[in-house]
Amino acid sequence: MITGTNFIGFKSVKGGGKMFTTTNPVSNTENPWKFTEVDENQVDQALGLATQAFEIYQQTTPTKRAEFLNAIADGIEALGDSLINTYCLETGLPQGRAKGERGRTVGQLRSFANLVAEGSWVKATIDTADLGREPMPKLDIRKMMVPLGPVVVFGASNFPLAYSTAGGDTASALAAGCPVVVKSHPMHAGTGELVATAIIGAAKATGMPDGVFSNLNSSGIEVGQQLVKHPQVKAVGFTGSIKGGRALLDLAAARKEPIPVFAEMGSVNPVVLLPIALGSKGDYWAKTYAGSITLGTGQFCTNPGVLLGLDSEVLDHFIQILGEEIIKIEPSCMLHPNIAKAYETNKNRITEKSGVNLVAEFPKETAQNHARQAVVKISGADFKANPEVQEEVFGPFSLVVACSNTEEMNQVIALMHGQLTGTIIAERQELDNYGSVVNTLRNKVGRLIFNGVPTGVEVCAAMQHGGPYPASTDSRFSAVGVHAIDRWVRPLSYQNWPNNLLPAELRNENPLQIVRTIDGTSTKAKI
Amino acid sequence: MITGTNFIGFKSVKGGGKMFTTTNPVSNTENPWKFTEVDENQVDQALGLATQAFEIYQQTTPTKRAEFLNAIADGIEALGDSLINTYCLETGLPQGRAKGERGRTVGQLRSFANLVAEGSWVKATIDTADLGREPMPKLDIRKMMVPLGPVVVFGASNFPLAYSTAGGDTASALAAGCPVVVKSHPMHAGTGELVATAIIGAAKATGMPDGVFSNLNSSGIEVGQQLVKHPQVKAVGFTGSIKGGRALLDLAAARKEPIPVFAEMGSVNPVVLLPIALGSKGDYWAKTYAGSITLGTGQFCTNPGVLLGLDSEVLDHFIQILGEEIIKIEPSCMLHPNIAKAYETNKNRITEKSGVNLVAEFPKETAQNHARQAVVKISGADFKANPEVQEEVFGPFSLVVACSNTEEMNQVIALMHGQLTGTIIAERQELDNYGSVVNTLRNKVGRLIFNGVPTGVEVCAAMQHGGPYPASTDSRFSAVGVHAIDRWVRPLSYQNWPNNLLPAELRNENPLQIVRTIDGTSTKAKI
Repeated sequence: MITGTNFIGFKSVKGGGKMFTTTNPVSNTENPWKFTEVDENQVDQALGLATQAFEIYQQTTPTKRAEFLNAIADGIEALGDSLINTYCLETGLPQGRAKGERGRTVGQLRSFANLVAEGSWVKATIDTADLGREPMPKLDIRKMMVPLGPVVVFGASNFPLAYSTAGGDTASALAAGCPVVVKSHPMHAGTGELVATAIIGAAKATGMPDGVFSNLNSSGIEVGQQLVKHPQVKAVGFTGSIKGGRALLDLAAARKEPIPVFAEMGSVNPVVLLPIALGSKGDYWAKTYAGSITLGTGQFCTNPGVLLGLDSEVLDHFIQILGEEIIKIEPSCMLHPNIAKAYETNKNRITEKSGVNLVAEFPKETAQNHARQAVVKISGADFKANPEVQEEVFGPFSLVVACSNTEEMNQVIALMHGQLTGTIIAERQELDNYGSVVNTLRNKVGRLIFNGVPTGVEVCAAMQHGGPYPASTDSRFSAVGVHAIDRWVRPLSYQNWPNNLLPAELRNENPLQIVRTIDGTSTKAKI
Repeated sequence: MITGTNFIGFKSVKGGGKMFTTTNPVSNTENPWKFTEVDENQVDQALGLATQAFEIYQQTTPTKRAEFLNAIADGIEALGDSLINTYCLETGLPQGRAKGERGRTVGQLRSFANLVAEGSWVKATIDTADLGREPMPKLDIRKMMVPLGPVVVFGASNFPLAYSTAGGDTASALAAGCPVVVKSHPMHAGTGELVATAIIGAAKATGMPDGVFSNLNSSGIEVGQQLVKHPQVKAVGFTGSIKGGRALLDLAAARKEPIPVFAEMGSVNPVVLLPIALGSKGDYWAKTYAGSITLGTGQFCTNPGVLLGLDSEVLDHFIQILGEEIIKIEPSCMLHPNIAKAYETNKNRITEKSGVNLVAEFPKETAQNHARQAVVKISGADFKANPEVQEEVFGPFSLVVACSNTEEMNQVIALMHGQLTGTIIAERQELDNYGSVVNTLRNKVGRLIFNGVPTGVEVCAAMQHGGPYPASTDSRFSAVGVHAIDRWVRPLSYQNWPNNLLPAELRNENPLQIVRTIDGTSTKAKI
């Protein structure tokens, strides 16, 4: 079923560049499919088609666009076991995770279909005319959100479905009315091809224009660079490392026409453990965090990589239990041999730093590419002297920072980079004494969590997934939830425009029955 | 009354750098006040204070923040004639314009005060818990907009009040909860000082923290560069030239922590003149556009700098009348001798280009620094061969492009850069034949205008002032209207957060009585 093909619009083509395969990290063998990297001309072709498609696609009716998104979801479900099996062969992740992620992916597509079908997401804002106003007449002005143009989406290594080919970036960009060109992640190009087949099938079945979607294979960085520099690309979505995301951001910023890059990058998701909570429920939290740190082999962007506590007996006890619990957990396979190698290297790099002490590390030999989870400890003073110990170790690893007092805890948080999440573990009565800690943490993160774990990102409207740099490249937007659509749109105003030539969303009759703000009032009324 | 002072927070201080004065362009003499540029330490002090103030200011209640904004408006009005006179002495603009701009500035401040006092602008979004959900419980998540941190605002040369010290950028950033550091425009530093005095007075009177506002003088580019590179600055607002805006954007993008820059830059605001409209009302439109091109000596960002028509007798007639009308208008003074010089240079640079023919230019000698308005003409073919003729000439100048047919008109528009506005002059019955022209124009602009002029930017919610690059550096935001606040805020989610510790906007009781989206429904209800 997997042929190693690229999709340049509707056309299935072999790439013109070098060949590559994907790896099964469990067996440590290459999967049987051969993929060929697209060449420069093929990138040009995909963008040429996307630009042509944009003219038609941006004007599709909400109903048709929702039909397309739902048809993609149907198509992904129809792939059945072949998708699940390919996913597992290319990632080493278990079937349960594959199915869960498929459900999330399909759910995201359907939720954007609902958003688009309902229609109010365009934020129609109408200020009616007052031609008798003095000294100048007030003209009729109507505004709505319109798509930016072709969007490039980079597949994520750690979410082969939910943040790759038909993941949140693609779903939100297509919902917005933007054609999408995916740079498939080379570690799961087969999974990507299957999903791309579902998207192309859905596009054809629902009458979408050729070029509304392309899927490009590449194992190196050149194709991605060409895409970000391409003048016909109007925005970029990326999920991955800080190094990778920053490189794309820099390329986009250096363009003659700079374009927005929404890169969701690294985070260590600091967790503040307050003493009364540790005293009353330290064992519970230690066990819970052992689970959160190792969940998905620690390969989540919301993995808790730094835990902060006040140096005390209750913290020592927590650390001891955390160490005991974490090595009880059976090590699991990482996504790729290179990721497993990098995990060991980065873990050792941090562990060898001055002041860092190993608390616990899975003590036995493991199967190939399986990660040996570890917890290390540092004092607040040593953290302050070497704040680079906060650098993300992608995998099941966490650094506990034992601060000598609240002030030092605050200083440590102030030295941390921007984060997706920040968590407070506390009894309610003690929280009042840590107002400044909460305030400092709030300015660093996109999501504050009380008595919970950062792993597990609910797909809902109230979710903020993104945060101050480098958690993401633009903290004003979210990669998860329906508001993710805001990344790919811009407001367009129509002044004194004839009613019958306005987009349906802005016409007097309100034919789509959407919520609009008319002269300051939110309403579904006609004008 | 003007002392040449800077405000580093509440403190009035002499700058430590070089001295400069402002110029009266009408008399071509220097104004009597001496300003001193701030030095590096003073910039640091202003940002240190702003960062401290942020902790307090971001938590001010909506009522207090609205009180502050209204007090600034009151303070500006209380400056009375001294402000109007200073404005005129520093810009050469007439009293009527000064008063109109003061009204706009005060109106903007009051409209942001109303927005903040009403409170729903924070987009509170609440997804309530479903702890019984299978397989995983759904946690309570609540999201709202929070301020980014200290914002730097660069005063605009052409709007000493409405887009400078207490202009739209400052008003929207203060409304959002961001402290503001203004780099005052050196051409109207006296006007800036007076307005800064009103802001500082309002801050003190309403109990705002020291550092919520600073006003820094500088005649060179170093202070601005230091500000944009400063690690404590979290966003930048700018109105001015493409060259200046791009330089700041590049500095911001090269930071260790890149920050958003909203620069509203050059535009030539293309106007498409369709033949039936020219046939029936050509004289009216010629006269109207002679007025729009010369309004405010052409020193508006929405000045119509390119007019496109189909080569025909009606276009020739329009051009002839436009030429006759434009030289009937009495030349007026430009903002500064350097701007007047640049106008002549740039006008000649375009006029001398291959294929460009002079239609009309004010034929007589003018008073010092007064601009001699001009209209030039080029064929569509010559435009396509030299698209750089579209470059903005800041002043009362317009280029008419005579296209040989609709296709060529479309090609010319496709070659144009991103624009703030695009206008169509047409009879309704002919518009159907120009669908592709409208579509091409729509993708280039932030605002489409039918049968009107682009000059005159209504301050209202439906206004989009911003557009594809280089009209602005981020087309997803507007510099005018209440939505301008969105530039300075980011979403922050609270997960499982104790109700009594949530911000008032997100508490169950909805104490601020704002509109919130609860489980997908827009409501003012409690939970």
